[in-house]
Amino acid sequence: MGRGVAHKLIESHLVEGEMVPGEVIGIGIDQTLTQDATGTLVMQELEALGLDRARTELSAQYVDHNLLQADEKNAEDHAFLHSAARRYGLWFSKPGNGVSHPTHMQRFGVPGKTMAGSDSHTCAAGSLGMLAIGVGGLEVAMAIAGRPLRVRMPEIWGVRLTGELPAWTSAKDVILEMLRRHGVKGGLNRIVEYHGPGVATLTAMDRHVIANMGAELGATTTVFPADGAVRDFLRAEDREDDFVELLADPDADYDVTDEIDLSSVQPLIARPSSPGDVVPVREVAGTDVSQVVIGSSANPGLRDYAIAAAMVKGRQTDSAVSFDVNPSSRQIFSDLTRMGATFDLINAGARIHQAGCLGCIGVGQAPAVGRNSLRTFPRNFPGRSGTKEDSVWLCSPETAAASALTGVITDPRDLAEKLGMAYPRLELPERASVNTAMLVPPLPREEAESEELVKGPNISALPDFPPLPDRIEAPVLLKVGDDVSTDEISPAGARALPFRSNVPKLAEFTFTQIDEDYPERARETARESGHFVIGGDNYGQGSSREHAAITPRYLGLHAVIAKSFARIHWQNLANFGVLALEFADPADYDRIDAGDVLVLRDLAETLPSGAELTVRNDTKGEEYRLRHRLSPPQVEAVLAGGQIPLLARELT
Amino acid sequence: MGRGVAHKLIESHLVEGEMVPGEVIGIGIDQTLTQDATGTLVMQELEALGLDRARTELSAQYVDHNLLQADEKNAEDHAFLHSAARRYGLWFSKPGNGVSHPTHMQRFGVPGKTMAGSDSHTCAAGSLGMLAIGVGGLEVAMAIAGRPLRVRMPEIWGVRLTGELPAWTSAKDVILEMLRRHGVKGGLNRIVEYHGPGVATLTAMDRHVIANMGAELGATTTVFPADGAVRDFLRAEDREDDFVELLADPDADYDVTDEIDLSSVQPLIARPSSPGDVVPVREVAGTDVSQVVIGSSANPGLRDYAIAAAMVKGRQTDSAVSFDVNPSSRQIFSDLTRMGATFDLINAGARIHQAGCLGCIGVGQAPAVGRNSLRTFPRNFPGRSGTKEDSVWLCSPETAAASALTGVITDPRDLAEKLGMAYPRLELPERASVNTAMLVPPLPREEAESEELVKGPNISALPDFPPLPDRIEAPVLLKVGDDVSTDEISPAGARALPFRSNVPKLAEFTFTQIDEDYPERARETARESGHFVIGGDNYGQGSSREHAAITPRYLGLHAVIAKSFARIHWQNLANFGVLALEFADPADYDRIDAGDVLVLRDLAETLPSGAELTVRNDTKGEEYRLRHRLSPPQVEAVLAGGQIPLLARELT
Repeated sequence: MGRGVAHKLIESHLVEGEMVPGEVIGIGIDQTLTQDATGTLVMQELEALGLDRARTELSAQYVDHNLLQADEKNAEDHAFLHSAARRYGLWFSKPGNGVSHPTHMQRFGVPGKTMAGSDSHTCAAGSLGMLAIGVGGLEVAMAIAGRPLRVRMPEIWGVRLTGELPAWTSAKDVILEMLRRHGVKGGLNRIVEYHGPGVATLTAMDRHVIANMGAELGATTTVFPADGAVRDFLRAEDREDDFVELLADPDADYDVTDEIDLSSVQPLIARPSSPGDVVPVREVAGTDVSQVVIGSSANPGLRDYAIAAAMVKGRQTDSAVSFDVNPSSRQIFSDLTRMGATFDLINAGARIHQAGCLGCIGVGQAPAVGRNSLRTFPRNFPGRSGTKEDSVWLCSPETAAASALTGVITDPRDLAEKLGMAYPRLELPERASVNTAMLVPPLPREEAESEELVKGPNISALPDFPPLPDRIEAPVLLKVGDDVSTDEISPAGARALPFRSNVPKLAEFTFTQIDEDYPERARETARESGHFVIGGDNYGQGSSREHAAITPRYLGLHAVIAKSFARIHWQNLANFGVLALEFADPADYDRIDAGDVLVLRDLAETLPSGAELTVRNDTKGEEYRLRHRLSPPQVEAVLAGGQIPLLARELT
Repeated sequence: MGRGVAHKLIESHLVEGEMVPGEVIGIGIDQTLTQDATGTLVMQELEALGLDRARTELSAQYVDHNLLQADEKNAEDHAFLHSAARRYGLWFSKPGNGVSHPTHMQRFGVPGKTMAGSDSHTCAAGSLGMLAIGVGGLEVAMAIAGRPLRVRMPEIWGVRLTGELPAWTSAKDVILEMLRRHGVKGGLNRIVEYHGPGVATLTAMDRHVIANMGAELGATTTVFPADGAVRDFLRAEDREDDFVELLADPDADYDVTDEIDLSSVQPLIARPSSPGDVVPVREVAGTDVSQVVIGSSANPGLRDYAIAAAMVKGRQTDSAVSFDVNPSSRQIFSDLTRMGATFDLINAGARIHQAGCLGCIGVGQAPAVGRNSLRTFPRNFPGRSGTKEDSVWLCSPETAAASALTGVITDPRDLAEKLGMAYPRLELPERASVNTAMLVPPLPREEAESEELVKGPNISALPDFPPLPDRIEAPVLLKVGDDVSTDEISPAGARALPFRSNVPKLAEFTFTQIDEDYPERARETARESGHFVIGGDNYGQGSSREHAAITPRYLGLHAVIAKSFARIHWQNLANFGVLALEFADPADYDRIDAGDVLVLRDLAETLPSGAELTVRNDTKGEEYRLRHRLSPPQVEAVLAGGQIPLLARELT
């Protein structure tokens, strides 16, 4: 039986366990990626762990999220991260150098390598034939410290691509087609592996688009083969020597399968407010648009900007539309400018923003309440844009540019027909304008050792969490529905993000998207008993931010009882000492109300046994059966108050 | 006796009074300029006044301040302003089109015309031979409604320029030389008029630099002649037809005089935290720099960016420096890109930001606490950068670029010598890439009348202020020193600015740069008595924002007693019903402490008489003599609770 790319990648890095879906395996990690919004915590964790120097082949710290600098806090985070990179032997990518994922792909990605990253879109590196997994910051800290990454072996989902994309569609429409078919939970506990003859019709950057938004399917990661297109990419980046071929065996077998005929793909769009609510653009054509944004790691390639530039060249975007463009990296901005596309965008009315994530993570570009914003971004969770009652749609650069020109949602094929516009043939430069000056290399070990961490007044210490009590008697402070995202648990946006290095301050934003009073109620109950949160399906989907575990824990959260959990958040909860429990009978979810007092007993004995637990609802006089899926090391961590106290003990 | 340009401008527009320094005169206004941070109030005022349509030759509403859009409020302001421009017959400059001053100069400035603008740098239009005065929003609203602008006739300060600037210096060094000589109060109650043979060596955009920062001298405005350089400028902007020659008579006489030999000017820099604290760059050379920013209305011209680009071309800015560039207008960004300078800046490590004011007004780009930031901006008042304990320096693009390359404050002449770098000869395009697509023209009257104002949830109504009590017995809530700026009274920055259209919310920021508890104390005393503020010299210098009058008034401020007042703020206080009083004996300032209870009596009788007032200090058992400089109409407004109730009565 032949093996696929994902199988080969795992096999070559397996250090613990067996490759049986559902079993815990340990994977050796070659590279790590951290960005600033999660990275300050990772660096604080390295400090708490007492690490001397990174033990990976390559670790890179990016600054791409908090770039607005509305006050001193962003700049202080940047200085802290730069100093930590110097101290621990990491690459440092300066603010303005670009979004981590495309930048890492351009400068550091190597086929056949593994990577752990504290960003849920780390999976984008699967475009080069890497096994790249987005995890919580603490797991990245452990990977930097040389520990294997422990995950449950996912199923491999082989998606066979045939045919070739028609004009006016692009890679974004492929991943939107996947989301249309399978929704935001379709990829849970799976690795998506694209194969078949259609793969060769996609450039490496096209594959980045598809791999990146594999996160929106809930997939563990996405992989593509390392083939000629990857070699072409690395050659253009002056790194052909880094190329290693990695192909699936012709008779590779997959646990699950699907197939997409690329020639049948049409322009698609995700409606507000879920990446999974996908419809054909024509179905919603004519809807008013007040903002169009092009950028982010979901459409980061030169061609994504160049196609939009070619479409608006010599034309004017609608007078009622704000047309925002944020280049994904300094290098791409440089190439875009060299080829004249920046000029065309400016003259068509674009607001060109600095290279970085910006509006994608709610850092600027927030739309007015209820007004439609079309974005080439990966996510449109409610409020993620920075506007609480936002109305954000996700689409391709082609659909975005067409809609910017008309002021209403527009299928680019229809605009082309109306204007007699041919699908632009792009002349992209064969060689990228490689310039590494904003990437500061690691210091030699002897110099690094004497480096001091630069901690501005806003960089707090990690709070100490006490061990989990053996008995929890506490109220349910919040009951939420399905698919609650980490954006809703711990919001991003320009107000909250600057406090990413300051847990006590950031905690004030916890769950406020759902319930403004949660932080205050939590503080009130924390003194006495702590509290529970009740969740529906897929609790904690979305961004990998471990703040979504730390800040409720800081406010006294002991346990979340949900129908099911999103993988990364589930892991983060264990890492920071919060018990993640699932209903044995999902119908019990309906029996609990906010305010009910629940009792869990004998946790020190029950949790390690793996047996079902019983929670008593004192208010209702009922009992419900619960399960946990924690591994023995995870149980140990939860009981100890999280991984940090355990690990620090080990490393020192 | 010959007449200068300023004299001719006033004479040709005089509708009331006599041109005797100190006398109140009325000036007919041809054009108005409003930006978004002050403009939302102006539009609310037009609404409160019941205006039908602008009665000026041209009025333009710009969006250049609040561009970050950290939440929905900015976007809602933009939509409100756009709707108000449609309703009242104004031009609307979309977000991203650029900073008001250079944009207005490029598209609308006409020699010989007058302009009132709700921005203190409105005076920049003096570069074209206009009489352009920055005033409070309400005065602009009145100008839009066809009222003359009332000011006290200033002295005319003739500054004769001779010689030519040496290499590595530019117009910024000229105005810094003026500030070095005369400080931030040197221009109070004066119009600066540049004349002499040196004027011809400066382009119109160079003159913009000098005229713009005339505001920092405290001058009423600055004027240059409309000569061949102005004609050249208008020709490049495709508007040669708008040129009208306006020269000083050869024997023009000035009230005050000064002279600068341009050939003796050297690179200068304003130290933190006043534009008036100017020293030669060499005196502070070698000081560490963590940020360099190029942009703003103080150095807005193509050459200002192009010279920096030429200096960093093929080089790399220092790895510890954030090198930020924000183009001042879409058009300049377009030209900069066309000539390749954008490419050079990106490759040298620049973070290119959207066109607009941004960091100049504390909207983004805030530096870390205590770390040195060099900026080509006009102002460095404490905290204006968005960072409370900031350390901001002001310099030319040449000094900024040199320091970005080295990472320390650097005289560009010394860098040039070290690198063997010749002063770049710039090849600027003869024609600007004129593109007016982001400037939305006024609607025809019949269409405008049916337009509705678009008011998002954050657009409040203007609060009603009651008439001034005849007797005020109230405590001194705050005593401040000299040169308190409107930035300190009502801070800008990304936190406060979004509330510019919402007086109750914005009031929470009043004086918090100086005293965090002021708003709370003010609210507590407001119910009973209101309160006093005691100020030193030049109270209310800086930005023209009328919020600095409205928000303390909203919190119960009845009177400010100061040694002296900055002109625009003094006017704003009267407009919104706050009594501005000056100590007859400045030494009495020292006799009053915060907390003292003061009593003013018989105001309705004493104020119109113009007689000295007596304030009783009940706490100390003393009395002090006070003066006011209010005109009879101003007295009427103060007693009525401000201009709005008076004017609305008149117009309806």
